[in-house]
Amino acid sequence: MSNYQAPLRDMRFVIHELVGSAPICALPAYADCDAELIDAVLEEAGRFAGDILSPLNPVGDRDGARWQAGADGKGEVLTVAGFAAAYKQFADGGWMALPCPPEHGGQGLPRLLAVAVSEMWKSANLSFSHVVTLTHGAIEALMIAGSDDLKATWLPRLVTGEWTGTMNITEPQAGSDLAAISCRAVPQADGSFRINGQKIFITYGDHDMAANIVHLVLARTPDAPAGVKGLSLFLVPKFILDADGNPGEHNDVYCTSIEHKLGVHGSPTTTLVHGDHGGSTGYLIGELGRGLETMFVMMNSARLSVGTEGLGVAQRAWQLASEYAKERIQGTDMTQKSGERVAIVRHPDVRRLLMQQRAHTEAIRALAYSIAALQDVAHQSDDAAARDAAHRSVELLTPVLKGWSTESAVELTSLAIQIFGGMGFVEETGIAQYMRDARITPIYEGTTAIQAADLAGRKIARDGGKVLATLIADMHGDAARLQDSGHATLAAIGARLGASLGHLEAATAALLEKMRTQPAAGLVVAEPFLKLLATVVGGWLMGKAAQIATQAIAAGSTDPFYREKIVSAKFYADHILTRSSGLQATVEADNALLLEMADEAF
Amino acid sequence: MSNYQAPLRDMRFVIHELVGSAPICALPAYADCDAELIDAVLEEAGRFAGDILSPLNPVGDRDGARWQAGADGKGEVLTVAGFAAAYKQFADGGWMALPCPPEHGGQGLPRLLAVAVSEMWKSANLSFSHVVTLTHGAIEALMIAGSDDLKATWLPRLVTGEWTGTMNITEPQAGSDLAAISCRAVPQADGSFRINGQKIFITYGDHDMAANIVHLVLARTPDAPAGVKGLSLFLVPKFILDADGNPGEHNDVYCTSIEHKLGVHGSPTTTLVHGDHGGSTGYLIGELGRGLETMFVMMNSARLSVGTEGLGVAQRAWQLASEYAKERIQGTDMTQKSGERVAIVRHPDVRRLLMQQRAHTEAIRALAYSIAALQDVAHQSDDAAARDAAHRSVELLTPVLKGWSTESAVELTSLAIQIFGGMGFVEETGIAQYMRDARITPIYEGTTAIQAADLAGRKIARDGGKVLATLIADMHGDAARLQDSGHATLAAIGARLGASLGHLEAATAALLEKMRTQPAAGLVVAEPFLKLLATVVGGWLMGKAAQIATQAIAAGSTDPFYREKIVSAKFYADHILTRSSGLQATVEADNALLLEMADEAF
Repeated sequence: MSNYQAPLRDMRFVIHELVGSAPICALPAYADCDAELIDAVLEEAGRFAGDILSPLNPVGDRDGARWQAGADGKGEVLTVAGFAAAYKQFADGGWMALPCPPEHGGQGLPRLLAVAVSEMWKSANLSFSHVVTLTHGAIEALMIAGSDDLKATWLPRLVTGEWTGTMNITEPQAGSDLAAISCRAVPQADGSFRINGQKIFITYGDHDMAANIVHLVLARTPDAPAGVKGLSLFLVPKFILDADGNPGEHNDVYCTSIEHKLGVHGSPTTTLVHGDHGGSTGYLIGELGRGLETMFVMMNSARLSVGTEGLGVAQRAWQLASEYAKERIQGTDMTQKSGERVAIVRHPDVRRLLMQQRAHTEAIRALAYSIAALQDVAHQSDDAAARDAAHRSVELLTPVLKGWSTESAVELTSLAIQIFGGMGFVEETGIAQYMRDARITPIYEGTTAIQAADLAGRKIARDGGKVLATLIADMHGDAARLQDSGHATLAAIGARLGASLGHLEAATAALLEKMRTQPAAGLVVAEPFLKLLATVVGGWLMGKAAQIATQAIAAGSTDPFYREKIVSAKFYADHILTRSSGLQATVEADNALLLEMADEAF
Repeated sequence: MSNYQAPLRDMRFVIHELVGSAPICALPAYADCDAELIDAVLEEAGRFAGDILSPLNPVGDRDGARWQAGADGKGEVLTVAGFAAAYKQFADGGWMALPCPPEHGGQGLPRLLAVAVSEMWKSANLSFSHVVTLTHGAIEALMIAGSDDLKATWLPRLVTGEWTGTMNITEPQAGSDLAAISCRAVPQADGSFRINGQKIFITYGDHDMAANIVHLVLARTPDAPAGVKGLSLFLVPKFILDADGNPGEHNDVYCTSIEHKLGVHGSPTTTLVHGDHGGSTGYLIGELGRGLETMFVMMNSARLSVGTEGLGVAQRAWQLASEYAKERIQGTDMTQKSGERVAIVRHPDVRRLLMQQRAHTEAIRALAYSIAALQDVAHQSDDAAARDAAHRSVELLTPVLKGWSTESAVELTSLAIQIFGGMGFVEETGIAQYMRDARITPIYEGTTAIQAADLAGRKIARDGGKVLATLIADMHGDAARLQDSGHATLAAIGARLGASLGHLEAATAALLEKMRTQPAAGLVVAEPFLKLLATVVGGWLMGKAAQIATQAIAAGSTDPFYREKIVSAKFYADHILTRSSGLQATVEADNALLLEMADEAF
């Protein structure tokens, strides 16, 4: 199996041509960034991902992170051989700092670039990438709500990657239901808190790759109200800092076990026990009772990140399937009489399977990068109206990306296995890992049901579908332009897009009505609605891509990439966008019988 | 995790009411069979599957079959602890003999019953069930083409299960492409053949559960023509029989390794080497050069069997998800103000996910059992026209079932994992095994592409769509009856079915045109066409089921099963059958750009 090759050509196309890097680089915060810098960073990151992270990916899957009783008799995690060295190279190379704010030592590069770089880490080695994702999450939470003191103490060495971060949220009785969290935090005379409780499913909750681990822990103070309003956020380091600010005494937080999982074996999923040996020391982040609020603000980034995981895994699985299809000799070419054995890429159904992966993955990339650019505008524009509009688009599209990309990743990695036939089912081949790894992505950081409920409720019903209506109007404009282009393929794509927008509009009206009159009926169809919206947005972005490609060809470009992009967009319109009519009907359907059925009948 | 509980109620409904056991039991060969006997066998089989096979399923997954150097230094396979004892109970209980012909010691029960019993083995323990499937395959091949002598020697102890069977087809360079098989068979003076070559992916190619193993091997004689017409079928026993007809000397066929697979760990997937230590003895089955023909005849049964695997695995995963959804407390009921924590089955999206699994699985069961009954008619009717019509329906529907059921099993087992949330990703929970196990089913016994090509080419284009047209006309009649039923839910189902039949007709015309003018273009859309046809046939059978249920309720039945069946059929119409319009558009689409794209561009 070859190492990961970053899809630089499509990344550059989406960044510079489809989304547009020029307006992003024109934002004051990114004055030092330009297309040349972006391309240079992409190339360097692609090398790191391909040369350093990718070879460790099958090793991580095979060997997995391990738990052992430490020297003190308490638990600790050993990561897979090679991960720690790669992590040191990663941090030393400044990759952790890339998207972080300059005032804390970061490079402050645009999210539009950071999302592509992050796709590479996820493609090359999803298990490894988790430590990056979690550290960035901790940095963001501290940025949002941490006091100046906390920021000064903890941020610089998180930004360099010298220390890593975690999120301690889930408990056995509190998964999607955060209101059920019971971990306790008792205030101490010195202003710190004593933390007590068990947290499960903590990614990189312990490891041997960095000098300290900064846990962000959701817990309840003794007199806090029940429910989510009683939750506060605490910083609980693995090692308490000594007088010089260096990791000193081991805090009373220990890893008691790690999970044996379907995938991402290289990424330790730990159970952490706080306070079983005298008490774990934590520091309040932000105000009491506002822990969930902080989590919600950082959630858009975290969900974009997991959406990018789906993209990265699907991309890599497609890459491997595509390589195999060009190497594996089997059968004859049905259009030739020679009877000569050919590579399976000649077979019509293999072409379909490969293009299904490609078109779908490219559409997801277009959406992920578009959201990243909108985040840049939302955070960095000096035009308040532009910031606000971008923010609302991010809010609308983030659950769409997260739900769609991750569900699609399971489907697309399964298609990749299919290309390998029987060899795909043999673990040594390596392709099955991608489906196993992908399977967690629709679950963590909010299941698809939670993304769909967020979309249907907070993002659509709450404003009566206003933000969505603006997006639909934009898409109609582009569909009309495609139809009027005078170019047969573009017109065909535009016609499909126009029809699908009609399906989306009808479904939106039906969803709004259900959410207004009987929210449970709305939530039965929220997931199909999410898929419908995602599918149409994907078709819109692929249509735009085809138009740009057509213009480039008309302007004389001979780069075959543009011709392939048109094939991919056409395929998307014919094989994926076509799902919209059925999804409309599903969203409109009456599910009274389902909702009325007795629990025990299920 | 509870043991498997056979879904006896739905099985009885499909057998007796939907498909109809009465006309099958009226066939001369099944004169001793009646509804009472069927129900008794189902209950007994359900007990065996639940009590004996189901507890071994997670053990098989965890421990897996193992290879070791045997006492003679050559390889042998040790199956998972408990499998051999369970197999002995299975054979002693007469379960192997159940569907086998009475003239060779079988019980000769209808396939309509056998398919349900076989669903149980596959649901309870797919890995274990493989040895049954393969033995039945060997029995069928011998029945079709074996000489009286071969039959007399080998069949009785295969039928009792004292010996087991295998299929030796695949070689490293010959997977889907059987013409590339290179295994050699050289005739000997005594009429036997000396077999030489390596076979891979041989299920239960070696094991310690039975006294002998009967390999059926596709190989080429020295002067055979190239391609599939040069293939002959040979019987190669693991132990050559002694003068008394008992297993004696070890034949020169040894297992050199087993695969480390994504799933079905309990089922050994072996590499067998024939003839590396002096020569392996084989006996010709049927005529020289007609090996593939024999394989093709038994293929319908084998494909029905793998289709039933998809059904069984999906059923069991749904069962476990359903149990979990009723136990797992998380969140509050959005329709209640109490704020009390409830089981997740109360949440709208969980209901949707559970019903998606149920409705889809029930539709697949209806199709699988329908095909089994058609096989009974095709084999046992004394009316030649009825036999012929049934045979043609079996031919048409078998690839539809195989492709649809297995692809759906991957999708549905993934939904089951989703219900478990984070716990679903932890292997000890046990639900992830079903998705891993399911993943092989769209690959072996002909990939989905091969099913789709068979459907589009041999089963539809060859007769200009005549057999399919008859089926569509039947379905139209039932759709009209539903629409005219005066029952709102049935009418709604009937309206959807009528619309979907329109989509299917248009798509059939498009497919026929493509297959006629440019077969490669037809094969690009053969898989979407297979899914379309399957989806519509599933909707038709669910519609019929709803009509029967409505009649039962009208006749005074208070069995809640009938009310649930109507919910399930309505859900199928709204959430699954609705896919037909998009699939029609995909089948009709022009894929010239895809077919023209350069190989290296993929």
